[in-house]
Amino acid sequence: MLTFESDYVEGAHPKILEELVETNMVQVSGYGSDPFTESAKKKIIQACGRENAQVYLMAGGTQTNALIIDTMLEPYEGVVTAETGHIAVHEAGAVEFTGHKVLTIPHHNGKMDPAELRAYLETFWKDGNHEHMVFPGMVYITHPTEFGTLYTRNELQQIGDICKEYEIPLFLDGARLGYGLMSNDTDVDLPFIAQTVDVFYIGGTKIGALIGEAVVFTHSNMPKHFITRVKQHGAMLAKGRLIGIQFDALFTDDLYFKISRHAIEMAEILKQTLKDKGYTFFMDSPTNQQFIVLENSQMEELKKHVGFSFWETVDEDHTAVRFATSWATTEENLRKLAELL
Amino acid sequence: MLTFESDYVEGAHPKILEELVETNMVQVSGYGSDPFTESAKKKIIQACGRENAQVYLMAGGTQTNALIIDTMLEPYEGVVTAETGHIAVHEAGAVEFTGHKVLTIPHHNGKMDPAELRAYLETFWKDGNHEHMVFPGMVYITHPTEFGTLYTRNELQQIGDICKEYEIPLFLDGARLGYGLMSNDTDVDLPFIAQTVDVFYIGGTKIGALIGEAVVFTHSNMPKHFITRVKQHGAMLAKGRLIGIQFDALFTDDLYFKISRHAIEMAEILKQTLKDKGYTFFMDSPTNQQFIVLENSQMEELKKHVGFSFWETVDEDHTAVRFATSWATTEENLRKLAELL
Amino acid sequence: MLTFESDYVEGAHPKILEELVETNMVQVSGYGSDPFTESAKKKIIQACGRENAQVYLMAGGTQTNALIIDTMLEPYEGVVTAETGHIAVHEAGAVEFTGHKVLTIPHHNGKMDPAELRAYLETFWKDGNHEHMVFPGMVYITHPTEFGTLYTRNELQQIGDICKEYEIPLFLDGARLGYGLMSNDTDVDLPFIAQTVDVFYIGGTKIGALIGEAVVFTHSNMPKHFITRVKQHGAMLAKGRLIGIQFDALFTDDLYFKISRHAIEMAEILKQTLKDKGYTFFMDSPTNQQFIVLENSQMEELKKHVGFSFWETVDEDHTAVRFATSWATTEENLRKLAELL
Amino acid sequence: MLTFESDYVEGAHPKILEELVETNMVQVSGYGSDPFTESAKKKIIQACGRENAQVYLMAGGTQTNALIIDTMLEPYEGVVTAETGHIAVHEAGAVEFTGHKVLTIPHHNGKMDPAELRAYLETFWKDGNHEHMVFPGMVYITHPTEFGTLYTRNELQQIGDICKEYEIPLFLDGARLGYGLMSNDTDVDLPFIAQTVDVFYIGGTKIGALIGEAVVFTHSNMPKHFITRVKQHGAMLAKGRLIGIQFDALFTDDLYFKISRHAIEMAEILKQTLKDKGYTFFMDSPTNQQFIVLENSQMEELKKHVGFSFWETVDEDHTAVRFATSWATTEENLRKLAELL
Repeated sequence: MLTFESDYVEGAHPKILEELVETNMVQVSGYGSDPFTESAKKKIIQACGRENAQVYLMAGGTQTNALIIDTMLEPYEGVVTAETGHIAVHEAGAVEFTGHKVLTIPHHNGKMDPAELRAYLETFWKDGNHEHMVFPGMVYITHPTEFGTLYTRNELQQIGDICKEYEIPLFLDGARLGYGLMSNDTDVDLPFIAQTVDVFYIGGTKIGALIGEAVVFTHSNMPKHFITRVKQHGAMLAKGRLIGIQFDALFTDDLYFKISRHAIEMAEILKQTLKDKGYTFFMDSPTNQQFIVLENSQMEELKKHVGFSFWETVDEDHTAVRFATSWATTEENLRKLAELL
Repeated sequence: MLTFESDYVEGAHPKILEELVETNMVQVSGYGSDPFTESAKKKIIQACGRENAQVYLMAGGTQTNALIIDTMLEPYEGVVTAETGHIAVHEAGAVEFTGHKVLTIPHHNGKMDPAELRAYLETFWKDGNHEHMVFPGMVYITHPTEFGTLYTRNELQQIGDICKEYEIPLFLDGARLGYGLMSNDTDVDLPFIAQTVDVFYIGGTKIGALIGEAVVFTHSNMPKHFITRVKQHGAMLAKGRLIGIQFDALFTDDLYFKISRHAIEMAEILKQTLKDKGYTFFMDSPTNQQFIVLENSQMEELKKHVGFSFWETVDEDHTAVRFATSWATTEENLRKLAELL
Repeated sequence: MLTFESDYVEGAHPKILEELVETNMVQVSGYGSDPFTESAKKKIIQACGRENAQVYLMAGGTQTNALIIDTMLEPYEGVVTAETGHIAVHEAGAVEFTGHKVLTIPHHNGKMDPAELRAYLETFWKDGNHEHMVFPGMVYITHPTEFGTLYTRNELQQIGDICKEYEIPLFLDGARLGYGLMSNDTDVDLPFIAQTVDVFYIGGTKIGALIGEAVVFTHSNMPKHFITRVKQHGAMLAKGRLIGIQFDALFTDDLYFKISRHAIEMAEILKQTLKDKGYTFFMDSPTNQQFIVLENSQMEELKKHVGFSFWETVDEDHTAVRFATSWATTEENLRKLAELL
Repeated sequence: MLTFESDYVEGAHPKILEELVETNMVQVSGYGSDPFTESAKKKIIQACGRENAQVYLMAGGTQTNALIIDTMLEPYEGVVTAETGHIAVHEAGAVEFTGHKVLTIPHHNGKMDPAELRAYLETFWKDGNHEHMVFPGMVYITHPTEFGTLYTRNELQQIGDICKEYEIPLFLDGARLGYGLMSNDTDVDLPFIAQTVDVFYIGGTKIGALIGEAVVFTHSNMPKHFITRVKQHGAMLAKGRLIGIQFDALFTDDLYFKISRHAIEMAEILKQTLKDKGYTFFMDSPTNQQFIVLENSQMEELKKHVGFSFWETVDEDHTAVRFATSWATTEENLRKLAELL
């Protein structure tokens, strides 16, 4: 059955599989000390335009979030996020599992407001009892957000400046980063992110890889004995090559950007189709995830013919649902969908 | 350069890659709810001969150990292991990171002695102050052990009986299980393990897979809301298919057992070669890891021509080193090694 | 200098000191296994009117909250509280330190709304992705709340009923319980609490003791091996007698209730004085904490003559402050305060 | 019944109770910011002869151990102790509960051997795989040990030097410190300890206080935002005065040393009595705890007349037991005991 359920319903981009097959019998050392990983790291650093950046390849998003947050916070600190942040809602308390509180501020279509962030930090430090409270020790943002929305260059700069002023790191969760960078509606590029945030990751799992997120510490700020912390979190792969080879392929000849761009083009077609058919958008998303509101019986009917995701209950009779495109979406499938809508 | 450094220096068995390529564009749901994972689970359950077993596919060994131990212990309990157990030494404190103590008893070539285990448990329960102590809540064994040694059927039975008597689960870490099952010197098979222990895993990473360990709960004893705990540990993969497809291939036409057997055959040749050349064995191993003692200057010389692993310092002038065969080892490479030794 | 800064500025009620002195040389066993603790437990159980209740004496509030929550939750569960709950704001992340998330819903003068609680639980269980989220595993309320407000009998009953329906325990933090029970504006008594909630504690530290909170598990529901968990949390006192003797004194001849009532009477005088003097109340509190809004320069002036607590910034020019009475407040000091206001 | 079960069977030294009664109605701020605590800290710093020492008053031993270890270790580090160390055996895993491993080396009558400590650290750093292991980040010793034994000045100096060489802090658990300092068989005094270790505590609970351990950071090395960590551990008392007043009394006119000395004198009488009566000593202890081996039926008989502690099973027919003297032991009771033995 046709599905637009998510951007991880297929395996890997063919170029990645090709590389896996080709390198398969090359004997290399384990735990990420192989030449494929080395090559991938160099290419990523180059794409970021930051010579003193450090890269570490991880397996999945929740794991990466918990590890980055736990290793970059002091034990008396928590992480500030918009209340809709993935870490606050959909990671089963993985951050709290490491002993840290997730501190929330309001969201605006998935984004935090720089002024509200500043106010939060100011209030904390002015509070005479703040030593009895969890210190805000890091700011976490998602880009694209959980709603597919994007920060502007100006907003990122403001949030980055606030973090510098309060001397806390800014962490950008880029599980779908490529789709954000290739959006028609963005003035943000990879080097800008690399110079504005302290740590971020380039999502692979949702953009063509079988598995893998590339963490970038932007200014030689990888936590001390990071490898031991990775191991302690159970996040180290014996065959580090598996992720190294994939990111090496993704960052060769701009593959990562090209396939992200493809997903955006497919999303634009999907968006236009939904508009033409008169659907109500739950919100306006400039990336590969599109959200519409369906009347419940209509939703049940549609479900029989095409896959999509439940997003949230709007009211007793209506539900918001998500359709996602990806590097693998074809125009043909979009045409089939148009016929069903 | 020729290397026998470990059993994870190559990628995946070709049959696995083939399956990954073939299924690549099939659209499936995420998080392990795909049909490949379903099929793999069924085949594993069948191979175990336990209808009410439950299987869960994980990415790596340390992650699996920490997750199983954390989810099967009560918060006031720790896990009992031989002092050489992987969890006690080489997992960077991943178990303690989850809040549980690793309780150690002596080892005998990597194995625990059933009588010493019983004595440990007896002493704990007889101690009038035991409520101020960590309760032994699980027994952890590795098979093959870190030294490549194997428990006999009788020993496993004894340990299993003790655990039943004390009403605590027995957990077998089978990161290299196939190599143990296919050894010339074992009377233990997979169904026997499945009926004797409460939980174990079938290692994939070191036996032909790119990644993956198949956890088997042998009697419908998967912890409650296990999926949420997996997520909380950062151990859930969005593309669960990656592991599902691999184990499906490994458990089709006995591939797992055949390639394990191959490694054993290669190890027997290696062992004979080492014997013939007059090397001193650090200990006698019936599986794919062989340990010898080298004079340090000899070790430095050999290192220039072939890869192997440092094991431990024997004395000022001698070092124990490890050579490992795997599913990928060729007779040709063993011949080349023989020439170098 | 005169102070109304808090309800813990003096030592202990004289009757308690007397008992400590009198029993001082009696030799007893440690860790709470002494006859004083035994006697205190019996008296508390009797006052609660619940034969199958179990009592455990702890040292302080944050410690008690973290322990109760950690021991009564499953590892995949968090605790639901009004956003102003002490555990959510002023305990330095002690709950998250144990690995559990604090889940917040809106507050209304410090109280949660039963309907909003129900809606929260309903939404969680209806969410198709709830296995990726933290399960609401307990409800935490404070009575009196951080704002000195009180739940009505009806509200407590509703919250209790919702918890029963969802099969999660209801935990009432009674750090200032006596002041709530003796308020003029309450229809709640101790037996009602004991029959409505699953676990609660009777605060001693803020009501006449040097130290101590008496936890009541209302229906033989003390977590398994609770003593070991107490020790593991570092919360066990070698000289358990210290708290036992105090609670024994507090629950002899209704001392706890009498001194709580005294604080309420003093608070009523304070409230009337503040009203007469034309002060603006930040909110209406029926217990021993009274909150007023001061113009900042007025606050600075007053600070020179009398102690009170900063509560929160109201706007650029105004601050909310707290005055607290206690078992130790005298009418004479209230008269002195009246002269200063 | 006569008891020598432990050194915490009575309440507090009368001088302490006197001070508690006298200061009872003085109004002071909470959380350790009171003048009594201030005064106690100054007196302790003076007794230590270290101007830049910092003191923090805690409630109990396990709590103090877990807090010091957790706050002074990096997350990838564990604490090295003799295998009989209190933290390794009798604290219900309180250290592991904070996520850190307890690393053990052999004991010799409760003490670690400096040479064995050095060998342990050397082996770790030489191990090529040490990044997969828990880093030894602190050394923990007890003085007196769990067996009542004492380190010599020379041994402490050696251990201190090793720690300096490896740049890890040395932590001395002095739950019974006074009894060690006042032993007939020691060349160690308080200033020597304060200049040799990085952090230690002066036990109050077992030496005359109702509750309380005074932690000394010997060179301005209190961890950052320590108060917040104390709160996070649930270890902060609202009425900090309770411990401040007690240590102020203990460090006025050498009370702490005088009452410790009394216990030693009583222990010497006890020891002589046991010798005269022909008892077999389990080991030779120079402090207030004396250990003898009893034939089991003899033990059961004696138990009917006098209290003592089970120590450990020696063999099927014999048990080691402990008799403890304290600040409160009287010569009269020792005479009574002599008659029973």
